[in-house]
Amino acid sequence: MRNEDEILAAATRHLNKEPTASMAEIAKAIGISRATLHRHYASREALVHRLGQRACAGWERSQDEAGIVAATASGDPAALDRALRTLLRAFVVDADEYGFALTDHFLNHLPELVEWGERLEAREVAFYTACQRAGVLRADLPPRWVSNVVYGLSIAVRESLRHGDVARRDIDELLISTFLSGAGARPETGGSP
Amino acid sequence: MRNEDEILAAATRHLNKEPTASMAEIAKAIGISRATLHRHYASREALVHRLGQRACAGWERSQDEAGIVAATASGDPAALDRALRTLLRAFVVDADEYGFALTDHFLNHLPELVEWGERLEAREVAFYTACQRAGVLRADLPPRWVSNVVYGLSIAVRESLRHGDVARRDIDELLISTFLSGAGARPETGGSP
Repeated sequence: MRNEDEILAAATRHLNKEPTASMAEIAKAIGISRATLHRHYASREALVHRLGQRACAGWERSQDEAGIVAATASGDPAALDRALRTLLRAFVVDADEYGFALTDHFLNHLPELVEWGERLEAREVAFYTACQRAGVLRADLPPRWVSNVVYGLSIAVRESLRHGDVARRDIDELLISTFLSGAGARPETGGSP
Repeated sequence: MRNEDEILAAATRHLNKEPTASMAEIAKAIGISRATLHRHYASREALVHRLGQRACAGWERSQDEAGIVAATASGDPAALDRALRTLLRAFVVDADEYGFALTDHFLNHLPELVEWGERLEAREVAFYTACQRAGVLRADLPPRWVSNVVYGLSIAVRESLRHGDVARRDIDELLISTFLSGAGARPETGGSP
């Protein structure tokens, strides 16, 4: 017997690998009967909706644990820099755990989740704006672009882990270093992370 | 009357906005009857498959037009740098034009398109490796990570254009500058693009 959270975690893990898996395939991968899965969730849409809520909750928890609201309010460069690095590390965990939800077209059009996502994005945009004012991030980039870049890099993390392109132990530093310094080898950045 | 390419272009434009649109909704958005759309494509899967082929062809054309194979073979820093900037600009056009295909879970699991994508990715990874050897890109990043970063940033471009977060005229420079220099405001990068 598994509790709901174990079922959801296992379903997410399978969908991360096989995002188009059917209910029967998900049930098989989890190791429960199709009837049991259907007893919990009337349809694939209902299951995926629930997983989307779980992914949004994970995103919100990552923001909370990184303390981005307090850091934004403080305006303190050291606090903002610390919160930013903590947030990016948390996003590596989220991308690994909830990866498929990042780009599921069905999920990303459910009004409830769109609204939730917009609320979380607004907090993050305010945070990046504070980072720019405090000199932690470049001031010449639109804050919404910065937010979209972090989203895109989370997908890069997901793909890198999914295909085994990068070792798990290296990815936090790769993400932080690429986000802050880019991939160019100009003399100023000189290949150092 | 529309020819096939016009139908496909219009279908892609609609799916970029509404990635979960049904055949009926796609037909309506294109301005043709559902029967006509079904005469061309027996199912939504068949249509989306065709759009995926079109997106792969667009990706391949962007690589070709940027001349990444010749630049890779030359090993010349100036040629590599030029090809890299041309490629990134072409990816902005592709993200705007074929955006939904970048993250469509169904498409990204069709064996034919997976194989095509892997072939194109291999060319690109060889190109980024040559850029690293020539001192155009940082040598300390795994080339496959670099490739995934470019993919993630293409999605950031798509989202920025879709939500109107960034002006179309600014996005080429934002992409190139963020990819090469990152978003951090360290003294070395000093907020200059």
